[in-house]
Amino acid sequence: MSESGVGADPLESLRERLAELSDLGALAALAEWDQLVMMPSAGGAGRAMQMGALARLAHERATSEEIGDWIAQLADGALGELDRDIVRIARRDFERARRVPGDLAVEIARAGAEGQERWRAARAQDDFESFAPALQRNVELARERGLCVAEEGQSAYEALLADYDYGARTAELQSLFGELARELPPLVAAASERSPRRSLQVPVDVQRTAVAGTLARLGVESSSWRVDVSAHPFSTWMGQGDSRITTRYTDGEVESLLSSLHEFGHALYERQVDVALARTNLGCGTSMSIHESQSKLWENHVARDLAFAEVLAGELRTGGFEVSGTDLHAVLVGVAPSLIRVSADPLTYPLHIILRFELELALIEGDLAVADLPGAWRDGMRRLLGVEVPSDALGCLQDVHWGAGSFGYFPSYALGCLIAAQMWEALLRDVGPMEDCLRAGELEPVKRWLAERVHRHGRRMDTGPLIEAATGRALEVQPFLRYVAPLAGG
Amino acid sequence: MSESGVGADPLESLRERLAELSDLGALAALAEWDQLVMMPSAGGAGRAMQMGALARLAHERATSEEIGDWIAQLADGALGELDRDIVRIARRDFERARRVPGDLAVEIARAGAEGQERWRAARAQDDFESFAPALQRNVELARERGLCVAEEGQSAYEALLADYDYGARTAELQSLFGELARELPPLVAAASERSPRRSLQVPVDVQRTAVAGTLARLGVESSSWRVDVSAHPFSTWMGQGDSRITTRYTDGEVESLLSSLHEFGHALYERQVDVALARTNLGCGTSMSIHESQSKLWENHVARDLAFAEVLAGELRTGGFEVSGTDLHAVLVGVAPSLIRVSADPLTYPLHIILRFELELALIEGDLAVADLPGAWRDGMRRLLGVEVPSDALGCLQDVHWGAGSFGYFPSYALGCLIAAQMWEALLRDVGPMEDCLRAGELEPVKRWLAERVHRHGRRMDTGPLIEAATGRALEVQPFLRYVAPLAGG
Repeated sequence: MSESGVGADPLESLRERLAELSDLGALAALAEWDQLVMMPSAGGAGRAMQMGALARLAHERATSEEIGDWIAQLADGALGELDRDIVRIARRDFERARRVPGDLAVEIARAGAEGQERWRAARAQDDFESFAPALQRNVELARERGLCVAEEGQSAYEALLADYDYGARTAELQSLFGELARELPPLVAAASERSPRRSLQVPVDVQRTAVAGTLARLGVESSSWRVDVSAHPFSTWMGQGDSRITTRYTDGEVESLLSSLHEFGHALYERQVDVALARTNLGCGTSMSIHESQSKLWENHVARDLAFAEVLAGELRTGGFEVSGTDLHAVLVGVAPSLIRVSADPLTYPLHIILRFELELALIEGDLAVADLPGAWRDGMRRLLGVEVPSDALGCLQDVHWGAGSFGYFPSYALGCLIAAQMWEALLRDVGPMEDCLRAGELEPVKRWLAERVHRHGRRMDTGPLIEAATGRALEVQPFLRYVAPLAGG
Repeated sequence: MSESGVGADPLESLRERLAELSDLGALAALAEWDQLVMMPSAGGAGRAMQMGALARLAHERATSEEIGDWIAQLADGALGELDRDIVRIARRDFERARRVPGDLAVEIARAGAEGQERWRAARAQDDFESFAPALQRNVELARERGLCVAEEGQSAYEALLADYDYGARTAELQSLFGELARELPPLVAAASERSPRRSLQVPVDVQRTAVAGTLARLGVESSSWRVDVSAHPFSTWMGQGDSRITTRYTDGEVESLLSSLHEFGHALYERQVDVALARTNLGCGTSMSIHESQSKLWENHVARDLAFAEVLAGELRTGGFEVSGTDLHAVLVGVAPSLIRVSADPLTYPLHIILRFELELALIEGDLAVADLPGAWRDGMRRLLGVEVPSDALGCLQDVHWGAGSFGYFPSYALGCLIAAQMWEALLRDVGPMEDCLRAGELEPVKRWLAERVHRHGRRMDTGPLIEAATGRALEVQPFLRYVAPLAGG
């Protein structure tokens, strides 16, 4: 490996740099995972500095002049298909990153790490006031960054969206979400009238056993996976041999069964990217909405399937908790307007997202002051879900995203629901009925279809083209509405 | 924070860079801790790449021209005492680091991470052959590096020693170790004749409880400490609010009580460095021999103290295991020649180190081929300790160091024993008899003396001057011989 690109082949130099950036990205993922899962709380201030230093170096290496030179030299070269994609995405990333001043990138990384610590403490004490200054700083920095990277005709918020979903437009989101905001509330009302959402009193130990057993069936083994506990479930990856997911266990809930399959879906996406793309700029998921579609596919269409409920119920029985598949399924698909996004049922879930989309759009566009967020949250929950929010801990403090400085991320959760439903219909069309496989816990056909049609491409295709390639159609709301109609009793 | 040092105050620029290097060092520590404690094994190849990338960047940032410029500009400036020390050590580190080519630094980091993985597998399978190529590569790279950094009159090995202990000389080590190799074997023989080394059948669960209880008495609490399990106990630090130690539990042994206090001693040293030195180049332990003296002080002079044995026995009783302090003490100070360094008694321990010192010196100087290491190990164990080595897993594969590429590290373990004994005598002289405190488990006076006389200085004093400042004398063998004589029944 040469120390600099001087005189070297520009393609080789570019690929070397991209490999380095991929390595630094893995280290940043490790630092974040550790902070959320392992780090003693007093390490927070130091970790913020460490992540700031790493972000600054990565930014310097991602934006240094020579990358522009290498890309320019490669513009007219005869490249293979893969290298053409590498150069195309490298140019896009380079141009976007160059628009962010180094100081701002450092500041954002630090504010995000510190904000996350503030959020953690504020949420524990239900104290929005103590979090507000950190949130204010995150909003301002995100807006500033959005304005820096915005392409012609883009607003600051739309530019932030592109961090997570290149090509997404605010107006399209407003249209899709508008349709959902019209169609879903009547279904929620119908469901609520029909039957109250049921629950099961499953002890935490039994949940642990069932989660471990279920994940083991899907191929999660300790030589290349970790399954841990954190306040907010998440998944991360540090290369294809090191996938890490977290869940959380609440006594008397079965959310852990859903959230562990949700995070499994994220991790599987990264694991099944073509190995030829490893340590390039294409070797990861293409967008957050596709990522969320992968988690939602496993959460909504596998974990909430009636036939697969037999498998889950069997794992609970192994842990010593007697329940039938039918009863467990009824709990997993029960519908009831509630306060917490991550434990929301599949029908009300997108309404939680629509609220966050509206609020973060307003925060970034300056139409909503941070101090007014708790009130706006309560109003929105009343309007969209008809529920009263008793505390900020159960309201606007429930999610890590804004504390960590992520704006424009939330829409991908709802898009993920839509994309998952559309992909599941396409999968059934291609592979045939899945009921027998689901009842047997035999998910290899699902993993294979996803690997072939979605995962292996990495970042070679953007969200829109990938959806079309995998399903044959542009994104629509109808498959999702067909999925949720039975949950409402329709 | 400015992006580059152009036009900025050279002192500010230098301190900013040193803070960055400190942050990158913490990330490297995290990556290593994670690899040894948390990472799924299939992540090893990726982690080697990641650590390589980090090492290369850190090396580039530690050796870039501007540091030399800043230091040159600061040569004649009127600096405060602290800044003078910062610049003095920065110059030394810069000059040493500049002598190592970037490619070599990367290669060493990668080979170390890969070698560690090979070592782990080879040790599990008692298969030296499968480890030999990685070891060969590590030896060659270390020798090459030693030749690069050697100052005038230094051998390659002596230059490597300076990584861990600036100012250490091979001839001095040979003299100190020669004295030990003469004095200790007769004591070992006398002890062996007197009484066989006893053991206690303490279940692992009880050990866990006792380790947690003992560490809690010393101030280890979860908001700024982690205590985990790893194959080889170690400690690491990522800033003063994040100390991590590991131990290991073997059914029917009480090694975990000793090793957890040993690692506590390391971690305490880093925690008690003056906070004004944090994120400078002085904000950590000054050398490995001083570091080992801190761990050995807690292991030999606290954990193996008769009065403190009452505390440990009480913690074992809390876990449900009945034992008196006297009986526990007899086990903790029992002497018997054995195979494994980390569980060796305090009398035979330095002999294990002397063997490693002789062998690594011979490996680096080319007087011993890697293929001949297992045989040389067996011969040395016979000669120094009178024991037969039944397998390489219990022989030359027992330690991680050479697999990770560390040569010149081992001597510090024996030096640590000597320094600890000399410091403990100085502490008793200064503070008075400690028996009552030790019996009560009240160790604050020890922590305070160490903070004041040793820890707070960080790297402001090198090993030799620090020993003289703390104890009033240069390093001698006598205090250690006075400490071990009663163990031999003398």
